[in-house]
Amino acid sequence: MRTVKIGLLGLGNIGTGSYKTLEMNKDTILASTGIDLIITKILEKDTQRKRDINVSQDQFVKDPSEIFKDPEIEIVIELLGGIEPASSFMMEAMKNGKSVVTANKAAVAANFDRLTKTAQENNVLFRFEASVGGGIPILNAITTVLQANKFQEILGILNGTTNYILTQMTEYDLAYEDVLKTAQEKGFAEADPTADVEGEDCANKLSILMALAFGNYVPPSDIPTKGITGITKEDIEAAKAKGCKIKLISQAKKEKDKILYSVKPMEIPFDHPLAGVNNEFNAVFVKGNAVDELMFYGKGAGPLPTGSAIMGDVLEIARLSAEKKQ
Amino acid sequence: MRTVKIGLLGLGNIGTGSYKTLEMNKDTILASTGIDLIITKILEKDTQRKRDINVSQDQFVKDPSEIFKDPEIEIVIELLGGIEPASSFMMEAMKNGKSVVTANKAAVAANFDRLTKTAQENNVLFRFEASVGGGIPILNAITTVLQANKFQEILGILNGTTNYILTQMTEYDLAYEDVLKTAQEKGFAEADPTADVEGEDCANKLSILMALAFGNYVPPSDIPTKGITGITKEDIEAAKAKGCKIKLISQAKKEKDKILYSVKPMEIPFDHPLAGVNNEFNAVFVKGNAVDELMFYGKGAGPLPTGSAIMGDVLEIARLSAEKKQ
Repeated sequence: MRTVKIGLLGLGNIGTGSYKTLEMNKDTILASTGIDLIITKILEKDTQRKRDINVSQDQFVKDPSEIFKDPEIEIVIELLGGIEPASSFMMEAMKNGKSVVTANKAAVAANFDRLTKTAQENNVLFRFEASVGGGIPILNAITTVLQANKFQEILGILNGTTNYILTQMTEYDLAYEDVLKTAQEKGFAEADPTADVEGEDCANKLSILMALAFGNYVPPSDIPTKGITGITKEDIEAAKAKGCKIKLISQAKKEKDKILYSVKPMEIPFDHPLAGVNNEFNAVFVKGNAVDELMFYGKGAGPLPTGSAIMGDVLEIARLSAEKKQ
Repeated sequence: MRTVKIGLLGLGNIGTGSYKTLEMNKDTILASTGIDLIITKILEKDTQRKRDINVSQDQFVKDPSEIFKDPEIEIVIELLGGIEPASSFMMEAMKNGKSVVTANKAAVAANFDRLTKTAQENNVLFRFEASVGGGIPILNAITTVLQANKFQEILGILNGTTNYILTQMTEYDLAYEDVLKTAQEKGFAEADPTADVEGEDCANKLSILMALAFGNYVPPSDIPTKGITGITKEDIEAAKAKGCKIKLISQAKKEKDKILYSVKPMEIPFDHPLAGVNNEFNAVFVKGNAVDELMFYGKGAGPLPTGSAIMGDVLEIARLSAEKKQ
């Protein structure tokens, strides 16, 4: 048995979900991996919020350097969201010899090169499975067991909010504004839904997927991006008449030596696997020159699915660092 | 750059597909991993068959011990098929310090405990991604990035031949015998299709999935197994009338402390993700207590998709052994 101590930056919804994932499954993880994961310190201002987890007051710290400078902590999980101070905190942790796990697509997409380089320079690991597709283990697949492929295409439904809105518009012949309102009431869309409905969230995720699959980092601001705010009932009807559904598709495609990429609403034929991906579900369709077509489907958001991906990354780091030490 | 030498047992369809996968993608693999994979020796009687790969006569050996005793070979790929001599050969390779990769579901399912124990005792790695779902990277996901879950259910369409037959019967209102004949002509079904249509192939794969997801090995002969030979046009019609498709489902489900398992034709509602998995495609639906529902979809057979999984396993072994040596 090996104990691995973890510092957590942020105990909001996703932080709480990760903590809870570990609480629920500590016994299974220990039995199958021999690794005892313990979250020893948590950076969080709101220490009084009611959370459905067993967290004690003395785990909370106010100064992130209490985590970065703690020699017992091996892994730092960053769940603050936003580009800064999250990116600086991750690099600071790496410089102090900590491996880093994050779900933060905005920070990873904005600073992909700096973050991966800092990890390499400090001989630590950096993983961000939860940043794309929530619980769907797509990044790990692309960077490990599918590496014997030349990737040719990636097509993704990468945002649950917009997929929920488009699905409801399609199934119940509703207008965009009406569905958005219901989605906000149900908690499927944020009060300010701009980053989701205008496609920015998808552009961040596509930037990360392209960097890993094609080894070609394109900043999200350079990806042609169109959201779903302009989609009307008539557009949906016209697509249906052609045997298609409108989906917000993040696409990257290799043509000869060029990579074409975009985020935009597209008409997907009913019999394409992505057409069956409805409501809050996400899916990533990948084409490789050996494996041909693959699709990964699952919950692209939510505290526990995201927690599954985060703790999966933590376990992979713990496993790899154990191999190194043998 | 690190060179990893490989011995290959069997150069039939899957062996040729694995060789070709490496030929096509050697440059990409080297660029992304720094690992130069070379198949140095091949055990194969039929040295004259025309294959669409650059293999030279001096790579062929007739005695497997030329591979097992070669100190330069780190990894042995077993693609002979059948339980024996494949199982004995794999254990012999392990005892000689070689890590082993196989696509052989019959051998892995029959000898799961002996093979994994022999690998552990000899401190080598044993991987068999291609044995379940062809190119779909399901085993790696279950054993790495999804390990922070308690698995609750596995539902799989794990056999392409039977899924092709059921799809054609459903779409064109055809009888089982007529579709089987066409499938055999097209090469989607073997001359003796028993292992596929009676569900044995699925039972092997379910046995492997259960061993990994639940840590509970059940020999395939102990899995209640029913194939599709008794499915009539009328059964398909009756299912359709209920809004369902008949699929050959391999299922394992945790209920309290018991695991219920079977291979049998089941009625799947049209709106379930598995209902959209048609013809030769495979899919595995997994439910975990954190990640919730996930589905993996892709080509469950074929030389190149299987080659992708095999070479993916080889790369993972090469990567892990490099970590160990650092």
